[in-house]
Amino acid sequence: MVQAIKWERGVLTLLDQRILPHEVRYVSCADHRQTAQAIKDMVVRGAPAIGISGGYGLALAAKEAAGKFGSAGDTPEVLAAAERFLREAASLLVSARPTAVNLSWAVERVLDKTVSALKLSGVAGAAQAALEEARSIELEDVEANRKIGENGAVLIKPGSSIMTHCNAGALATGGWGTALGVIRQAWAENKVKMVYANETRPWLQGARLTAWELMEDGIPVTLLADSAAGYVMFLGKVDAVVVGADRIAANGDVANKIGTYTLACLCKHHSIPFYVAAPVSTFDLSLATGREIQIEERSEKEIVEFMGKPVAPQGVRAFNPSFDITPGELVSAIITEKGTVFPPLEQNIAAMIK
Amino acid sequence: MVQAIKWERGVLTLLDQRILPHEVRYVSCADHRQTAQAIKDMVVRGAPAIGISGGYGLALAAKEAAGKFGSAGDTPEVLAAAERFLREAASLLVSARPTAVNLSWAVERVLDKTVSALKLSGVAGAAQAALEEARSIELEDVEANRKIGENGAVLIKPGSSIMTHCNAGALATGGWGTALGVIRQAWAENKVKMVYANETRPWLQGARLTAWELMEDGIPVTLLADSAAGYVMFLGKVDAVVVGADRIAANGDVANKIGTYTLACLCKHHSIPFYVAAPVSTFDLSLATGREIQIEERSEKEIVEFMGKPVAPQGVRAFNPSFDITPGELVSAIITEKGTVFPPLEQNIAAMIK
Repeated sequence: MVQAIKWERGVLTLLDQRILPHEVRYVSCADHRQTAQAIKDMVVRGAPAIGISGGYGLALAAKEAAGKFGSAGDTPEVLAAAERFLREAASLLVSARPTAVNLSWAVERVLDKTVSALKLSGVAGAAQAALEEARSIELEDVEANRKIGENGAVLIKPGSSIMTHCNAGALATGGWGTALGVIRQAWAENKVKMVYANETRPWLQGARLTAWELMEDGIPVTLLADSAAGYVMFLGKVDAVVVGADRIAANGDVANKIGTYTLACLCKHHSIPFYVAAPVSTFDLSLATGREIQIEERSEKEIVEFMGKPVAPQGVRAFNPSFDITPGELVSAIITEKGTVFPPLEQNIAAMIK
Repeated sequence: MVQAIKWERGVLTLLDQRILPHEVRYVSCADHRQTAQAIKDMVVRGAPAIGISGGYGLALAAKEAAGKFGSAGDTPEVLAAAERFLREAASLLVSARPTAVNLSWAVERVLDKTVSALKLSGVAGAAQAALEEARSIELEDVEANRKIGENGAVLIKPGSSIMTHCNAGALATGGWGTALGVIRQAWAENKVKMVYANETRPWLQGARLTAWELMEDGIPVTLLADSAAGYVMFLGKVDAVVVGADRIAANGDVANKIGTYTLACLCKHHSIPFYVAAPVSTFDLSLATGREIQIEERSEKEIVEFMGKPVAPQGVRAFNPSFDITPGELVSAIITEKGTVFPPLEQNIAAMIK
């Protein structure tokens, strides 16, 4: 299976998802600044993959700190300066994309480990600890995805056609995928007739990434313009929708790729189950509802241009939110590695997480 | 205002809407075959504009018949051959695009007039009659759009933000527009705060045509990815949706650009009025319900490629219906030049048309 994130010889290597599937090219990040830029520029995307990359970004920062301060000896001044450097690096990484909570979750997890190690064993030990923690996050993510797949496949009836949006696959995670993990497992259990992949404007992650991942695995996939989703449901061709998530509030409101909310409304209208597949790290219980989730607005250019060519009149305004909020009331279940949460979501999320 | 269709010196001249707004280029159709091809290739699009072009296409056929048979004298054999030629030309024109009823409506209207004139005054008289009828259809369409605009603007409250899909504007008609006719009139009455134009994949008529038309008129417009429509409604930014129609069945079911049905479902979920603006020629009372409307499926290439460049893996399947059906239950009102039809649609459509 394709691997979007690799740590090789002290460098973070990211599969450039902006140019897939036509070109398979990797971008190297030698320091934490390059990592933050790659996250911002969407070389890597998908909430869990962004988290993993952020974790490795902080491991790079810890390595930079070791190079910068290592020769001066672990004096209190050096340790304080290294800690300052690490905290600044963490802020920069977290700010690269605001909506997915996995990014801040992973960066803070690595930061905590690194700062503890700094105090115990100095800058060199901190660099080692940071890298180990980043690796753990990656490995745990793949393991979580396998479990999400197993838990989700239980919900899929044999002979199902499943719709998905954007890419919540191997490319969006450490491997296997969240929504596509469910589809992969259901396919392995012979339950999947067809996968409908919405192309997912403006970045076309559905066309470029999801269709590609599924074809590589031999899973039947049909690509749709996003606006055709409703009509395909109207024709009775969709048995379930499964999507990923970038952040989930305490009441079950889900931030995910723009268009997810439209699908959830359509599922309600057609009485089709709407499932969200995400690791526990996606929950942000500090937020009572989805209204508090910061929605990233990206450049108008992404709508007004296509592959660098204008597709709209010069000077036209565009509104380009990258994500939307799906109220928990529209969610049939949230599938995690720790089990599946059914309504009432608020209560059952609290019970699972604590 | 822009004119998409012109009859100049015996030639039908169509603004090439495939390359707008970046290039303003006209395509000349010197005979009915070229006209049918131009309709098929979407040089001209929009149900009323397709109808007008089809009418002129038959006028070209009548002119061809005059050239072909005119010198032989109006013998019974010549008149029979000319009629056969005209009927074949009409079939070819009608088959160019299957979903919009205005095409067959206009072609048959010109055919009837032409065949009558043929019998009364021979092939030269038939050519003259065909052209006059085609011109009448064009002029009546502009007049109808003005009335649709006036009737529709009554429904728009001051300070409204209106969403539209695809292009039902001057470019889709003889001029002024149906859905955009309503918006233009409401704007003239100072009622419009913002127009949200969905980009309308795969052809991007919203980005290329609607945004352009509105900007030319100085009407404020914001462009959206189709999948953002739901979220913009969720944010409370949409007061009404107005779209055009390609065919309306006796019960009020509406065939229109793919994505229209999704918008109608979203309107219902958000209690936003969903208006359809269309001339009376759009009704097809021979069809009891929308289930009987033939939905054109276009090439997978339109989804898999963009401006000739692949955007999805080679060999991927795609489903590309050009239209969808919105059940009458989801339609708040149908705005025509003869008045506005409110529910119960079936009964009120019958009352208006008879």
